[in-house]
Amino acid sequence: MPKVTEETRRPRVGVVGGGQLARMMCESASQWGLDLSVLAAAQDDAAVAGAPDVVVGAPHDHDLVRAWATGCDVITFDHELVDLDFFAEIEASGVVVAPSPRALKFATSKAFQRTQMADAGIPVPKFLVLASYDRDAVDAFVAAAPHGVVVKADRGGYDGRGVLTPSTNAEVHDAVRDMLVAGAVVLEERVQLLQEIAGLLVRGRRGDQVAYPLVTTVQRDGMCVEVTYPTRLDPDLLEEAQDVVRRVGDQVDAVGVLAVELFVTPDGVLLNEVATRPHNSGHWTIEGCTTSQFENHLRAVAGLPLGGTAALFPNATMVNVVGSATPGSLVDALAVPGAHIHDYGKAWRPGRKLGHVTVVGTGPDVRVRAWEGAEALGTSATKESS
Amino acid sequence: MPKVTEETRRPRVGVVGGGQLARMMCESASQWGLDLSVLAAAQDDAAVAGAPDVVVGAPHDHDLVRAWATGCDVITFDHELVDLDFFAEIEASGVVVAPSPRALKFATSKAFQRTQMADAGIPVPKFLVLASYDRDAVDAFVAAAPHGVVVKADRGGYDGRGVLTPSTNAEVHDAVRDMLVAGAVVLEERVQLLQEIAGLLVRGRRGDQVAYPLVTTVQRDGMCVEVTYPTRLDPDLLEEAQDVVRRVGDQVDAVGVLAVELFVTPDGVLLNEVATRPHNSGHWTIEGCTTSQFENHLRAVAGLPLGGTAALFPNATMVNVVGSATPGSLVDALAVPGAHIHDYGKAWRPGRKLGHVTVVGTGPDVRVRAWEGAEALGTSATKESS
Repeated sequence: MPKVTEETRRPRVGVVGGGQLARMMCESASQWGLDLSVLAAAQDDAAVAGAPDVVVGAPHDHDLVRAWATGCDVITFDHELVDLDFFAEIEASGVVVAPSPRALKFATSKAFQRTQMADAGIPVPKFLVLASYDRDAVDAFVAAAPHGVVVKADRGGYDGRGVLTPSTNAEVHDAVRDMLVAGAVVLEERVQLLQEIAGLLVRGRRGDQVAYPLVTTVQRDGMCVEVTYPTRLDPDLLEEAQDVVRRVGDQVDAVGVLAVELFVTPDGVLLNEVATRPHNSGHWTIEGCTTSQFENHLRAVAGLPLGGTAALFPNATMVNVVGSATPGSLVDALAVPGAHIHDYGKAWRPGRKLGHVTVVGTGPDVRVRAWEGAEALGTSATKESS
Repeated sequence: MPKVTEETRRPRVGVVGGGQLARMMCESASQWGLDLSVLAAAQDDAAVAGAPDVVVGAPHDHDLVRAWATGCDVITFDHELVDLDFFAEIEASGVVVAPSPRALKFATSKAFQRTQMADAGIPVPKFLVLASYDRDAVDAFVAAAPHGVVVKADRGGYDGRGVLTPSTNAEVHDAVRDMLVAGAVVLEERVQLLQEIAGLLVRGRRGDQVAYPLVTTVQRDGMCVEVTYPTRLDPDLLEEAQDVVRRVGDQVDAVGVLAVELFVTPDGVLLNEVATRPHNSGHWTIEGCTTSQFENHLRAVAGLPLGGTAALFPNATMVNVVGSATPGSLVDALAVPGAHIHDYGKAWRPGRKLGHVTVVGTGPDVRVRAWEGAEALGTSATKESS
């Protein structure tokens, strides 16, 4: 083997977490030769089978993570459920952490995100951060929210966990009190939802940035079930949404993929959530765009040039495979024309995200076939009429 | 974990050989969840890093291979340099071997291939199989070959190895005698080459078959350096070529991908070589077609439905990265718009196939950018003017 020099050596990227996002990063990294190491919580995590290097351990095992990080040029993340102070310490020790703990905070703390974004003039639903129980403040907030309220845990929620939608005043108070046991709570007005959309930005280490086309997302019980390109927004609203995505990106200033989820309401576009990593709303980019979100995330965090983000086809739909009572049939799914099956290699469990199916092409048949593929695989989600 | 039943269990495919073809099979299998095990010759083989299961050993270590094969539902191949009799024995023991040793023989023995194809009426260059030295027969063959002759080893050749192109009568005799030491020799007329093209077929275990669009290939020193879709054949010749590919497919009757390389000459289309596995001429299908040759090969050998083979873009070019004196720059290659970099993770060595670059899109710029990407990575091959 020839001597590896600094010029020819590929950066080694460490990924905290071994879920499906890490697995899809591994698939991308294998293709173009990036060196990658996965810190997985367990040997049967989705990313373990295809990872070129795996360390099994918890992201809060400081000694383990410190030792692992020194062998990496850059650390990135499969999920945000990490101790930001500890990763700030890793960053201070000279390992690049991308996104930085500062940017990660927008994804780990709903209270921080809402407060910062509102201060920056970005449109968000009306909200109230509660560090402790305040009956009068809750009552006043509920009284001013004509469509009801949502109670969100400041930290730790995902895929609908940590989010409650109480229907009576008494239930709101109960939800707030229950959630406060674990930490701060964000009380938020329910908005009149016309559509949910999402935008992905990718920012490089030198501030270079690209944006993927916006998509329409469909959520069921707080979990994304369908993503469709293009959105059916009229041009004014599309421009408004792109502008919000850009402004959110400037606030978060995250190296790597930033996913921005938006509510479209009768009063315009409002920010919902941000994620500082590849995101379910971007899985369609694997087949649908010049460069997938996984490749672009790795390019970004490794300090490499970003790839093109244009959609390659007029239409694309991604449907999640969410575990139902019994697994479906791979044979039937592969028989659906143009269905790109993605299986995360996870044990089948009702309600669990197990894979996704993407179809790209032209016309409404694209969405029909994506659902056919996911239904053949046994997804528990059901298709809404278009 | 739920109990794995026969209905829900994914077939386990064993791949003999750990080169780049096995690596790209692993990348595909990871996406759609096929279970895969690689029999690699060495720990630093291209496919080892991303394979979910690896056994290190030689394909002629019968005890090892027998034990490994019993854990697989089907055995397939990264290369043809295997003992057919032994794999026939594995097949007889009840493990599906796909392609079968009978089909593999067309790829492992040039003498067998030429004789069978000529007997079946498929157009091949004039040839003479020599099991031992015969001065008069060689002289007569050379006298009847106005453009010179090629001397090929019956077995073991690939990427230009095992092929000699002597220029004088004395050199022909020397080449034949030298090669006969190792086994039978095929003496073949040199043809007037207008273009080299290739076609890929995929045949399932129930005889179902799909065909990829034909491509133009450019060889340098016997090694493929460029593949371009579409070919620039006129419609009559294109139809003739497709017909030859189909007829060759019927003769070989290989489960999985069959690559058929053709010469286009002033006298029409002649068969060059066949390969019973994914092939360099099909790497462009990863980005260029509905289903890649790797996914379709695995679907075929695993007895699953075959995927679509249509080209997704008007133009596609793949350029191989062949090792030059010094490696190039990944940064520069990633900066080429739309360049899909494939790095096989092999140690850099002059003359070695180390990766490839594919660009898809519309117009002549596609080919220009594919070469820019490969040149940035340091390929030693040079582009012909178009």
